[in-house]
Amino acid sequence: MVRVVILGQGYVASVFASGLEKIKAGKLEPYGVPLGDELPIKIRDIEIVGSYDVDASKVGKDLHEIVKTYDPEAPESLRGITVRKGIHLGSLRNLPIKATGLEDEMTLEEAVDHLVEEWKDLKAEVFVNVCTTEAFRPFESREELEKAIAGDDRERLTATQVYAYAIARYARETGGAALVNAIPTLIANDPAFVELARESNMVIFGDDGATGATPLTADVLSHLAQRNRYVLDIAQFNIGGNNDFLALTDRERNRSKEFTKSSVVKDLLGYDAPHYIKPTGFLEPLGDRKFIAMHIEYVSFNGARDEVVITGRINDSPALAGLLVDLTRLGKMALERKAFGTVYEVNAFYMKNPGPKDARNIPRIIAHEKVRSWAGLKPRWL
Amino acid sequence: MVRVVILGQGYVASVFASGLEKIKAGKLEPYGVPLGDELPIKIRDIEIVGSYDVDASKVGKDLHEIVKTYDPEAPESLRGITVRKGIHLGSLRNLPIKATGLEDEMTLEEAVDHLVEEWKDLKAEVFVNVCTTEAFRPFESREELEKAIAGDDRERLTATQVYAYAIARYARETGGAALVNAIPTLIANDPAFVELARESNMVIFGDDGATGATPLTADVLSHLAQRNRYVLDIAQFNIGGNNDFLALTDRERNRSKEFTKSSVVKDLLGYDAPHYIKPTGFLEPLGDRKFIAMHIEYVSFNGARDEVVITGRINDSPALAGLLVDLTRLGKMALERKAFGTVYEVNAFYMKNPGPKDARNIPRIIAHEKVRSWAGLKPRWL
Amino acid sequence: MVRVVILGQGYVASVFASGLEKIKAGKLEPYGVPLGDELPIKIRDIEIVGSYDVDASKVGKDLHEIVKTYDPEAPESLRGITVRKGIHLGSLRNLPIKATGLEDEMTLEEAVDHLVEEWKDLKAEVFVNVCTTEAFRPFESREELEKAIAGDDRERLTATQVYAYAIARYARETGGAALVNAIPTLIANDPAFVELARESNMVIFGDDGATGATPLTADVLSHLAQRNRYVLDIAQFNIGGNNDFLALTDRERNRSKEFTKSSVVKDLLGYDAPHYIKPTGFLEPLGDRKFIAMHIEYVSFNGARDEVVITGRINDSPALAGLLVDLTRLGKMALERKAFGTVYEVNAFYMKNPGPKDARNIPRIIAHEKVRSWAGLKPRWL
Amino acid sequence: MVRVVILGQGYVASVFASGLEKIKAGKLEPYGVPLGDELPIKIRDIEIVGSYDVDASKVGKDLHEIVKTYDPEAPESLRGITVRKGIHLGSLRNLPIKATGLEDEMTLEEAVDHLVEEWKDLKAEVFVNVCTTEAFRPFESREELEKAIAGDDRERLTATQVYAYAIARYARETGGAALVNAIPTLIANDPAFVELARESNMVIFGDDGATGATPLTADVLSHLAQRNRYVLDIAQFNIGGNNDFLALTDRERNRSKEFTKSSVVKDLLGYDAPHYIKPTGFLEPLGDRKFIAMHIEYVSFNGARDEVVITGRINDSPALAGLLVDLTRLGKMALERKAFGTVYEVNAFYMKNPGPKDARNIPRIIAHEKVRSWAGLKPRWL
Repeated sequence: MVRVVILGQGYVASVFASGLEKIKAGKLEPYGVPLGDELPIKIRDIEIVGSYDVDASKVGKDLHEIVKTYDPEAPESLRGITVRKGIHLGSLRNLPIKATGLEDEMTLEEAVDHLVEEWKDLKAEVFVNVCTTEAFRPFESREELEKAIAGDDRERLTATQVYAYAIARYARETGGAALVNAIPTLIANDPAFVELARESNMVIFGDDGATGATPLTADVLSHLAQRNRYVLDIAQFNIGGNNDFLALTDRERNRSKEFTKSSVVKDLLGYDAPHYIKPTGFLEPLGDRKFIAMHIEYVSFNGARDEVVITGRINDSPALAGLLVDLTRLGKMALERKAFGTVYEVNAFYMKNPGPKDARNIPRIIAHEKVRSWAGLKPRWL
Repeated sequence: MVRVVILGQGYVASVFASGLEKIKAGKLEPYGVPLGDELPIKIRDIEIVGSYDVDASKVGKDLHEIVKTYDPEAPESLRGITVRKGIHLGSLRNLPIKATGLEDEMTLEEAVDHLVEEWKDLKAEVFVNVCTTEAFRPFESREELEKAIAGDDRERLTATQVYAYAIARYARETGGAALVNAIPTLIANDPAFVELARESNMVIFGDDGATGATPLTADVLSHLAQRNRYVLDIAQFNIGGNNDFLALTDRERNRSKEFTKSSVVKDLLGYDAPHYIKPTGFLEPLGDRKFIAMHIEYVSFNGARDEVVITGRINDSPALAGLLVDLTRLGKMALERKAFGTVYEVNAFYMKNPGPKDARNIPRIIAHEKVRSWAGLKPRWL
Repeated sequence: MVRVVILGQGYVASVFASGLEKIKAGKLEPYGVPLGDELPIKIRDIEIVGSYDVDASKVGKDLHEIVKTYDPEAPESLRGITVRKGIHLGSLRNLPIKATGLEDEMTLEEAVDHLVEEWKDLKAEVFVNVCTTEAFRPFESREELEKAIAGDDRERLTATQVYAYAIARYARETGGAALVNAIPTLIANDPAFVELARESNMVIFGDDGATGATPLTADVLSHLAQRNRYVLDIAQFNIGGNNDFLALTDRERNRSKEFTKSSVVKDLLGYDAPHYIKPTGFLEPLGDRKFIAMHIEYVSFNGARDEVVITGRINDSPALAGLLVDLTRLGKMALERKAFGTVYEVNAFYMKNPGPKDARNIPRIIAHEKVRSWAGLKPRWL
Repeated sequence: MVRVVILGQGYVASVFASGLEKIKAGKLEPYGVPLGDELPIKIRDIEIVGSYDVDASKVGKDLHEIVKTYDPEAPESLRGITVRKGIHLGSLRNLPIKATGLEDEMTLEEAVDHLVEEWKDLKAEVFVNVCTTEAFRPFESREELEKAIAGDDRERLTATQVYAYAIARYARETGGAALVNAIPTLIANDPAFVELARESNMVIFGDDGATGATPLTADVLSHLAQRNRYVLDIAQFNIGGNNDFLALTDRERNRSKEFTKSSVVKDLLGYDAPHYIKPTGFLEPLGDRKFIAMHIEYVSFNGARDEVVITGRINDSPALAGLLVDLTRLGKMALERKAFGTVYEVNAFYMKNPGPKDARNIPRIIAHEKVRSWAGLKPRWL
């Protein structure tokens, strides 16, 4: 069994919950789950035991009711879990949503205690962080992090950072817990958190789930690099209509996303080809199915100039939700192996910004073989 | 030194010759050459020593003069090699070109002897076959092949098959030679030829140089397969204006191409997703820069349906010519190692239809690492 | 009231019937119907009174039952019409469908009589021909047409040609009838039929309903022509999974389609830019939603070279079905005005190959204003 | 003869000058010039007599020298014109260019006088404004405009506004002059300037030359509107590497551009479909050849949902430069007809934001026929 707690019951978490239950009930193939049922821990072993949110209209509601607003075919088996109040710290700022959080009633230190107690009741093992993209600054030192918590410094901390801190404390007290950080806030790439994790029986996977256009760009760039084609420029647009895109119209948040996505170019090509890679805009009727467009220009043999354009309509949330079905199980496996800190082999395939800090991007196709190997599976093509 | 003989002095061979000389003269970066100057044999060590064609307007001309019609900036260093008369066997049928071949004056058996003698003079080591795409039938048994040659069976044999047979005889008599078969005619995938090669000190790389849309499709399909996304359908078009596309308007030739390109789907996905993958048409003003369009539809997590479209303008001949700069050197390396027969590790990266027969396609990104390893280079990302 | 008889109860006719009834019931907006409810004859005035087919599994069934196989939400109001047996003359040749037709039991002359009598019972006014694309040869003289009917010449005639002949006889006997020929067989472009129509109180609209990529190509080419940009080449592919695409894999039928679509280039640009415009293939899982890809390259000012690529996923049948909602009403209007023969103003907007013979293509955007004017509506932008 | 003065000797003006001279010398076809040589005033009659800029590295140089930096094949016939100092008023703010302007040495009132005197010497007839995109606020009243000039209000005025004011004064004193405003600053759409023009023998064409993706979007939207397809959403990106794109990374300037481009949706569809249409970014290696991507989703008949994607590589400056070859001649024609103020028939085809204020966008294909008619030419298709 893998006992999962969700942090941020939005689109991704709801599609995760819905698809997971349908697969468990044998009503759906595990498409979009990279390792399907190859892992020793099976999909049917995943159990959602808790869910947190800070949208006032969600807190206190039944999980089934919330999931249904995202997927009308939400299975009945989701009934019986009540969405609990989490921490917002301004994560919904500028969004048309009324926020409510534990910190409205207590200090952050008290909120951490409160969460840890709840998690003990839930016997939580793996936490999945799919909060709204935040404007954040990494901590580089553990002292600074601990001072910010102790000092109730609400300007310095984001919800994700407080959750990660609380999970560390919970892991220390209970023997172990894993955090899958699927949003851009640096946790697996923040040395302060990785050090804290290592000393607290905590596993961190992160950062920023590798979905959308970026992993595809990565493999296309690897394809060009292996042929020694010289990339002149890369333009990548994407536009969508879900809350994540709405949040990114906020300049500060967008900047954190931009940072995440750009290092991939240099890592894969070996040089920093001029590029423009960022979420471009919000267009409500697109909903969760975003439009992407990518243009790559390169030099081939004898000075020839080629151009490739990739466009697509891609469902944003299911792409990430499918990865979470693997990541929760890999999180449990890492706990069993006591692989505390962070696990590059996992991050390299599943994350846009694979931790630890300074770890580089590799072609996803190769990263896939590496994670198979880490998980004890036979390579597929190597 | 690698002493190279070209079979078919068309667009690809001319771009190969021109780009090679420019790189040797330090006037051009080796872009489009996958292994660049990492190999123990350097690019400057490649020497074109002979060239064959069957276009009456080319035979007897200086190589520089021919190359210049394809690349106005052909280097002067190409002067001094005269294009010799090869074998056509109907390979220019239905094309607006007047064909002339050795077989117009002698039997095939005599032509083979004639070629072997010329090659001894040239001290040829590696042969590059870039003839026009042919309508062919593979030989499965060596006896049948030998009978066809002996019986002067011009209906059964294609130019490529006769060249391959002649190279085997030349290799047996001289101690070794390599054939890079960059066109779809099955040689590395024809057990008759592989057996013949093994017993004749001959190395075969083939078949059908992996350029254009297909290797990119392969990597994109691998990308989807690794995420366990279920591919519903694949449509791939391409249209160009060079002689290769003109030749493919001939139905029979097109069929051989189609055969080559389709197996990749099943090899990479694990199931035979419905697909339409073939050269679509000839449009003269496009010239050597073809237009490709690819549409892939797949199922992601929770039953979501995604679509990806890839379009591009890609220079056809340079893409293949760049690979030849590696393949000629790898051919020499294989000779030095006495790796007679065919070499899957090389074919898997460089060929659309990697021999031997029944060898499967693997993601190109992984095949790249395999060929590096075969060549004694450090892996790039593994 | 407009009393409509359908010839060919396939995808297009079924979507037409279904959408029409939904609009009449106020359950659907008339999207895709160019003139919406601006015409003096309203959408609610259209009544389907008869339907013909030659698929043995459809003949004798209730219309609602057939439509439901194409649109699960077919309205109940379609009940009560029985699909009757029509004429096939090989139109289903090479398709995986068992054909049954009146001509299996009687001569073509007798079949014509049989149909005319049925239509008198139905009080038919407008006939919509949406049969499967046929391999045909136009008649240029009326005598040849009449001889073929009288001589029961089943090799010379297609289903569409026999239907058109029968409608002419029916119109002559009853005072008037209109034929909307939405498939490529030349009727409005065949002088034999236009002459026959003029003398028989018959109105013909045709040929080949202007849906899919071609009208868009037409407007894009007009756009370029008006800026005096010089088009170098045009490649247009499309691939789909409905019966129409399956039929087009048959070489002869495809050729008739190709003929239709190509004249547009010269008509709009003023010169015959090299082009490749044709249905490319059949890919079953695409269903009725085809994939199109178009590449246009042109010279702009100061010798600059530009490129435009258009791709799309387009529902094939609804695009045509929406036009039929106008065309049936315009057919009735033409009857009221005694505009016998064919009507260029209507054809120029609604048809790929606007009759009469030698009539040219004009930009669709301008043709739209012309048909508005013909229909007595205010221009929209002129 | 048409005596032309250029305001802003950047990419567009240089391509205009170079292409114009090549066409006059018979070395180039007038591709990209919509009315080619159909107008009564011929292309050979256009004479560039003066040029202004505010880039310190250009002022004082020979026109040929400047043009050559944009087009290496600039004709020698451009020699002999010295680039003069114009007005900047912060138009190069945040660009990596050192600005120099008349206002650095005198008041704006004095600068206007200075320009008027120079123009009298040059016998200027038509002014072409192709300055860098500015952050501006329109004047609505003439008094406010005159007060700003008199008060030397450098914060309120932009270079374009001062040029337009100076041209009005020049026209009043000399009997007539035309301004072609090819940038987004509202002049033809600013009632203050149109009123001023009407009373000053001045013709204004504007605003914002209709090049790039927007006119194509306009025709595609018209195409959909005429078929009564319901547009759900429109996303349009474009990215380029010339100074215009660099300038647009400045937020304020971008906003003015965005305003210009969006009204087209409502004008053509009749409703304000959700859209995201704006210049997206700057990517230096793209140079003047921008990459565009457009996604349109709409509802067709029977509730079917279609999608069209348009991508392209388009030379930015030549597209506009070609229009200027018409606009300068139409400007002279308007002067001859004393059509003072602004001319909607011209603006509707050539401008993104056709003046006067409140004039609406119409399909470009129809606008083309209107401007032909205004110019006394036969319609092409009407």
